[in-house]
This record gives sequence, C-alpha cells and structure tokens, in this order.
Amino acid sequence: MKTEGRNAVIELLKTGKNIDKLMLEKGAQGSLGLIFAEARKRNIRVQFVDKKVLDKESVTKKHQGVIAFTTDYEYFDLDDIIAEKKSEKGGFIVLCDGIEDVHNLGSILRVSECAGADGVVIPKSGNAPITESVIRISAGAAEHIKVAKVPNLNQAIETLQKSGYWVYALEAGGEDIYAQDFSGNVALVVGGEDSGVKRLTKEKCDKVLSLPLQGQVNSLNASVALGIAAYEVLRKRL
Amino acid sequence: MKTEGRNAVIELLKTGKNIDKLMLEKGAQGSLGLIFAEARKRNIRVQFVDKKVLDKESVTKKHQGVIAFTTDYEYFDLDDIIAEKKSEKGGFIVLCDGIEDVHNLGSILRVSECAGADGVVIPKSGNAPITESVIRISAGAAEHIKVAKVPNLNQAIETLQKSGYWVYALEAGGEDIYAQDFSGNVALVVGGEDSGVKRLTKEKCDKVLSLPLQGQVNSLNASVALGIAAYEVLRKRL
Repeated sequence: MKTEGRNAVIELLKTGKNIDKLMLEKGAQGSLGLIFAEARKRNIRVQFVDKKVLDKESVTKKHQGVIAFTTDYEYFDLDDIIAEKKSEKGGFIVLCDGIEDVHNLGSILRVSECAGADGVVIPKSGNAPITESVIRISAGAAEHIKVAKVPNLNQAIETLQKSGYWVYALEAGGEDIYAQDFSGNVALVVGGEDSGVKRLTKEKCDKVLSLPLQGQVNSLNASVALGIAAYEVLRKRL
Repeated sequence: MKTEGRNAVIELLKTGKNIDKLMLEKGAQGSLGLIFAEARKRNIRVQFVDKKVLDKESVTKKHQGVIAFTTDYEYFDLDDIIAEKKSEKGGFIVLCDGIEDVHNLGSILRVSECAGADGVVIPKSGNAPITESVIRISAGAAEHIKVAKVPNLNQAIETLQKSGYWVYALEAGGEDIYAQDFSGNVALVVGGEDSGVKRLTKEKCDKVLSLPLQGQVNSLNASVALGIAAYEVLRKRL
C-alpha cells in the first residue's frame, strides 16, 4: 500500500504503523527533512530517488516528494496460535527474541511452516515486523503460518507456560538438544544474530538448549539454528 | 584488492578471475561502456557512483572512472579436503550444485564448519565464488573450512565415490533422511534455490534424501536444508 504526500505521510508516521520504506525526492527541502528525521529515528528504510521515480510510483500523482510503502499484514493473537495445535503430539510454537534481519525472519517463518509449527510470535519492538521483504523471503510461508505480534515477549512466555508449554531458549551453554524428548507442548525461543536470547528472557524459559559446535566459528545463523532445532522437534514426533 | 583504470580492468576481465564488484563513474563515456557490457554478461555487480566516491576509493588516484574489487580467496584442491578427515567416524564433505545466492553460500560455509565438515566443493561455473560478501556472511567460517572450486561437479562426485564416499543428493521425492545411518564417508549435495540438484548430478549420486515437509510451502531454503541434513549426519556420529 502506498501513502503519498507530506501530510499523509506525517500522519502515517504518527500512527506507529509498520512502514516498509520511504521514498524521498533527492535534494528536496522543508517538511521532507522532518519526515526523514522521524524515519531515521524509527529505523525505517529511506530511499532517495529522482523526481521521475516518484512520478512513476505515484498512484495519486500528488506525491509532493514522498511516498511511504506499507504492508497490511494481518497478525493473529497468541490465543489463536495456542488453539491451532496442528499435531496430535502437542502444540509447537516459535518465538523470536530480537530478530532484526529480514532475511533471518523470513527464513524462520519458512522453516517453521515446513516443520509443522502452529505459529510464530514476534515482539512489537526490537524485532523486524512482517514486511513485504519478509513475506517474499519466506517463500510464501508468511501466508500459511500464523504470526502474533505481542507487546511483551516475557509475558507471552508466561502465558504459554500457563497453557502447558515447555519453553526452551536456543543458546550456547545449555543442555544437549538431542537429549530432550519434546513430548507435550513445545515452544522454542530464538535470539538475534548479535545479542542472542536476552538474559531476562532466558531466565523466564524452562530450559536452555544448545546445538553441538564442531568448528572454530562459535555460533550458527539464527534461522539455521532454529531450523535444526525445529526439525529435531519434528523428528522426535514422527 | 582493487584494480584501477580502464585498461587494467579490461585486462582483469579477460583473465576470467572473480570480480566482486565494479564501480563505474556515473555518466562516463567511451570504453567504460564496453566494460559495463562485459560485466553485465558475466553477472558482475556494477555500482554507478559519483566521481568523488571513486576518488575516495582510489589507491592509485588514476582510476579513470572505474575500479574493480576482487578477493584473493585461496581455494584448496579436492584431494586436500578428502585428506582432511576431521572425524574418526569418516570423511564429511558438502557439495554445492548451483548456489548463486551469496547469502545461501555464506550460510552453507558457516553451518558446514559448525557441523564439523571437512570442506565444501563448489563448481567453477553456475555457482557464486567466494567473494568478500560470502566471507562476511559466513561469519568467518570461510577462513576455517577448506573450499575447493572444481571444473566439473559430476567428476568431483566420481572422485569421491572412488575414494569411498557415499554421495547423497538433498532433494524432494527421495528416501527418509532419518532412516540413514551415515556411517563411513559421507558427501551431501545441495542445490540452488530454484533449480535444486540438477538431474544429471542427481543421477550420479548414490541416493536422494529428503526432509519431511509438514506445511504448504514445498521446499526449504538451501542453507537451512543443508544445515538440518549436516546436523543429522553429526547427530548420528556423536
């Protein structure tokens, strides 16, 4: 969806809605500077382009040097995901703790869907939202798996525990993942590339699980690690 | 490494060496057009930049509107990888069949290193080479795992088979990966995002192995699939 013109974009920025990217006219002045500053503050991708690019993208033909691109992705509630229960062996939910890279998030949605997870939970802040790029990278999985965006990941973990889930953080220094039986309801928490699962989140979890590392590199890519762990849950259930 | 100036870059293009990217001066004329055409033909990334960007990047200060960026990555021979044998349980080699995406290739190197593979084999054509981007995405794994670039992947598979390797293609429609014992020397072949493992390559392999897919999306990302399979080999060996 495109939002065009200076005031419309300023209003859109006020709502706090996800904006995939902003196109701004190169060398333009005035309120575009304010829009740019606000976009930077909120980590929105900004492209500076020639006026003719905006003219081509514009639907209204009144872009005034700015077009915002948004995705109207429909999130589910955590309760919808808990109710999903695709497998008779138990629920299976993936939680993202600070996955800011769109490649990783798209890839996590894809492998979660392939492994038969009921849904993916992302926190409202400190995590990439479901943008058009994420949907594209997920190879369509974003349309087939339920995603919940929650205000607080630790509260979501408590809700899951009260609903009978075992919540496992994927991190170095934990128990051997291959020694778990993964019976009952399972939730896996995967952390961002640099920070991993946050300390407070890890403390909320029932267990920390680790994958063996045989080389010099001391960590796996977030989506690959989640993929290996999710397929270990699936393998135990098959 | 930087190669600067029109003739130097034209000569570099003739050698067929890997070029990570070309920076060309915006709006420049003459032989830069020829350089651009050749770069496009060889799928080399081209950035059009202002003269001042080239001035800043230039070491020689005689760039004439063009700088080529190359990586001097040192490849190993297939024999070096066969000789590596990190695990007493047997050799473990990963082969890439048309991995053109640098994210996937970097990620494959990273998870191969973490899973304890002896090395990764890539074909000379139809596969991304080891560029600076691949090294960065591999999180340093490219420096710790041996990579061989071979003229012909099917010949490499024959060599491996003669050296006592079981060569498995990862593709849909094959045997259950969890039913394999992976004793002895193992080689896994992973295909590109769109094409998968090529038909002739698949016919050369001893077996085709598949991961179970529980959702609507009918394939996994190449590096995630390889990661799950490589960790299944590792799990059986631990």
